[in-house]
Amino acid sequence: MSLNQRSVDPRFSLNQWTTRHWPLPDLVAGCVDRGVRGVGLWREPVAEYGVARTAKLVRDAGLSVTSLCRGGFFQRPDAVAENRRAIEEAAELGAPSLVLVSGGLPEGSRDVDGARERVAEALAELAPYAGEHHVQLAIEPLHPMYCSDRCVVSTLGQALDLAAPHPPDQVGVIVDTYHLWWDPAVYDGIARAGAEGRISMFQVADWTTPLPEGVLTGRGMLGDGCVELRRFREAVEAAGYAGPIEVEIFNTELWAMPGAGALDLTLARFAEHVL
Amino acid sequence: MSLNQRSVDPRFSLNQWTTRHWPLPDLVAGCVDRGVRGVGLWREPVAEYGVARTAKLVRDAGLSVTSLCRGGFFQRPDAVAENRRAIEEAAELGAPSLVLVSGGLPEGSRDVDGARERVAEALAELAPYAGEHHVQLAIEPLHPMYCSDRCVVSTLGQALDLAAPHPPDQVGVIVDTYHLWWDPAVYDGIARAGAEGRISMFQVADWTTPLPEGVLTGRGMLGDGCVELRRFREAVEAAGYAGPIEVEIFNTELWAMPGAGALDLTLARFAEHVL
Repeated sequence: MSLNQRSVDPRFSLNQWTTRHWPLPDLVAGCVDRGVRGVGLWREPVAEYGVARTAKLVRDAGLSVTSLCRGGFFQRPDAVAENRRAIEEAAELGAPSLVLVSGGLPEGSRDVDGARERVAEALAELAPYAGEHHVQLAIEPLHPMYCSDRCVVSTLGQALDLAAPHPPDQVGVIVDTYHLWWDPAVYDGIARAGAEGRISMFQVADWTTPLPEGVLTGRGMLGDGCVELRRFREAVEAAGYAGPIEVEIFNTELWAMPGAGALDLTLARFAEHVL
Repeated sequence: MSLNQRSVDPRFSLNQWTTRHWPLPDLVAGCVDRGVRGVGLWREPVAEYGVARTAKLVRDAGLSVTSLCRGGFFQRPDAVAENRRAIEEAAELGAPSLVLVSGGLPEGSRDVDGARERVAEALAELAPYAGEHHVQLAIEPLHPMYCSDRCVVSTLGQALDLAAPHPPDQVGVIVDTYHLWWDPAVYDGIARAGAEGRISMFQVADWTTPLPEGVLTGRGMLGDGCVELRRFREAVEAAGYAGPIEVEIFNTELWAMPGAGALDLTLARFAEHVL
């Protein structure tokens, strides 16, 4: 065990998209080397490596899969079938939750209420299936700037309202600092989410400006932006959450770094700005 | 009177930033030519032309100034003095309201609650002065993607909470479709704003993706995006608002058009998608 291994907080989890171009075996070895205990995986690279093979790789390394990204996109015609497959994959990987990016408006549609109803309907279809597989569906409210094209669920309160008809072990919510920091009601939402037993995951990234074209790849490294990351962590803890903290940063500069260096930077910033 | 003049809805108002590069005398002549009754002005081009001279130009043309953009930016050290000047200018122009873009976080700050408190404090300092000048301070909630660098007021509900301590003739709110369309609570907010007598202005622009770098210049021409513009108009009407409807579109392509052509396009789209 290296010095590093002793200093990594056991809650730290590396979301695979943070080191997007790091091949899975290297990522796993890099995490083990540093004493990281958890990884958040994505379906596409997992499919590329093979689901069973990934499950074995991660299990053999002694790592936990803290979540699987992502299901959702409920406006697509094949959404329910596709999400059933994603639930099965999460179960096979031992991931406790499937992160749902609920989808935007269908092409040419202006019916945002209808799109939100479709999310509710899909959850009703999928929640029991998730329950049978011991996988929690984790509704992720995305920043409102993604409402039209990626996710019509924009606030924690809205996500909790969508989760409400279902048992907490079947449907929870993601608290992601990047998406929620601006919301004047976010701390009330975190308290409510905790009281309802629905905090599925706490994810951290920082908010920086200017936003890049397309606004997908400009999430800030921890400490580079204006989010009160520590306050968020304390709030989810006060709400009873004691699970993993995934670092999920989509950032062109970070992706250009070698995976090991990106992880080291992330670990250092996590210790400095989140703990 | 041309055919056009009879067909323009009397509530239509051209916000000056929609035809940003159109010189003020040309803009005024173009509006008169088409039977447009109102214009929303901006402080910078007004200062360039001269406040008194602008007031005379617009008054002589028989146009109404429907609002003055913009005050706010309360995180700047000289904000209160600067906003007093803006109130005086609004009064001189005969603008019923001064639009407030409340400002983001001070450089290097992560204290979003503090920035919001500063907005409340500045409103308390400025509201009586606005009242003396018969100018309403109009709090504009901006899209949450502007929270850090332009405006810590992100929802209609939050704007109404900030307005609450003040008489409605001193502090109101702007309902702008571009900034608010994503909010699941927006129609409740509009009803509340109407019941509280605080709808200062209704502004329209559409939401399109992908967003451009910096996310300032990608507002959509009416009908090009996913906003239910007509539903919004009906909602503000149902809430008792019968005032002007300003078209305010920041869009690089629109700005590249000659002013007259941009206005004609805007009028046609307004009739098609808002009325």
